[in-house]
Amino acid sequence: MNIREATKEDWELIWPIFHEIVKAGETYAYETNTTKEQAEKIWLDAPRKTFVFEEDGAVFGTYYLKTNQAGPGNHVCNCGYMVSSSARGRGLATSMCEHSQQIALELGYKAMQFNFVASSNEGAVRLWGKLGFETVGRLPKAFNHSIKGYVDALVMFKWLQT
Amino acid sequence: MNIREATKEDWELIWPIFHEIVKAGETYAYETNTTKEQAEKIWLDAPRKTFVFEEDGAVFGTYYLKTNQAGPGNHVCNCGYMVSSSARGRGLATSMCEHSQQIALELGYKAMQFNFVASSNEGAVRLWGKLGFETVGRLPKAFNHSIKGYVDALVMFKWLQT
Repeated sequence: MNIREATKEDWELIWPIFHEIVKAGETYAYETNTTKEQAEKIWLDAPRKTFVFEEDGAVFGTYYLKTNQAGPGNHVCNCGYMVSSSARGRGLATSMCEHSQQIALELGYKAMQFNFVASSNEGAVRLWGKLGFETVGRLPKAFNHSIKGYVDALVMFKWLQT
Repeated sequence: MNIREATKEDWELIWPIFHEIVKAGETYAYETNTTKEQAEKIWLDAPRKTFVFEEDGAVFGTYYLKTNQAGPGNHVCNCGYMVSSSARGRGLATSMCEHSQQIALELGYKAMQFNFVASSNEGAVRLWGKLGFETVGRLPKAFNHSIKGYVDALVMFKWLQT
């Protein structure tokens, strides 16, 4: 197991994970028909940093880290995590989230915020809670789930420095 | 009084308002030293629509409207409003907010969200409340106010369609 910064060459291995998750329309606020080129800009180019979870040359997970709000909000970062369906239940999300908190501190951020967690994504909500994130907001019917329809979205937040 | 869509030519009249408000670092999550060129991209180019509040050929207020989250979140829009210090207390923010809700409905949005209202901006919080926005989230110390230091930021939300 190895979490390392992603390179341009990793995109071929990241894209299948992104595509599988985003086209389902159940967890991420990206267009379900996002193209490979658009996704590369979103996931690899726009964020401040992108990482991959690699094992034996294969990529099973990925996350990005970026500043959540500029100027007076720039001490708070935002991350998004994706795990390949072939590697679920093995703790990759936990490993990547803990890794991202360490990176955030190294980059000088004081807090981390998730802006748009579908409340129907119960596994994620439970996991972020276990990792110290507090639900600080509930956006009524803000997430249009592909199967369940309109569900609330949660804002989750963790202060990393004391 | 006239609220109309902004043109490229309006930027010369919008910029002084943007600059005055953003450099103060008290209300908006933009870098306080944002340049005129960067600001034009942020306020005029990136949003879906930008409007000005015009009177006798002068611009006293402006707002943008954009989709807040893509894909499963794209039924919720986001707006930001700015009023020149020379025109405060005359109801321009109310007029622009009501106008924006009408435009949002015409564009097919179902709800409007403000992501990052500094809790210290009591006038704005009170006004949005009066206009039907509910505080649905409180981000602890997420706004680094230029004078007051870290203050909470609020997430405010209004469902426009029933």
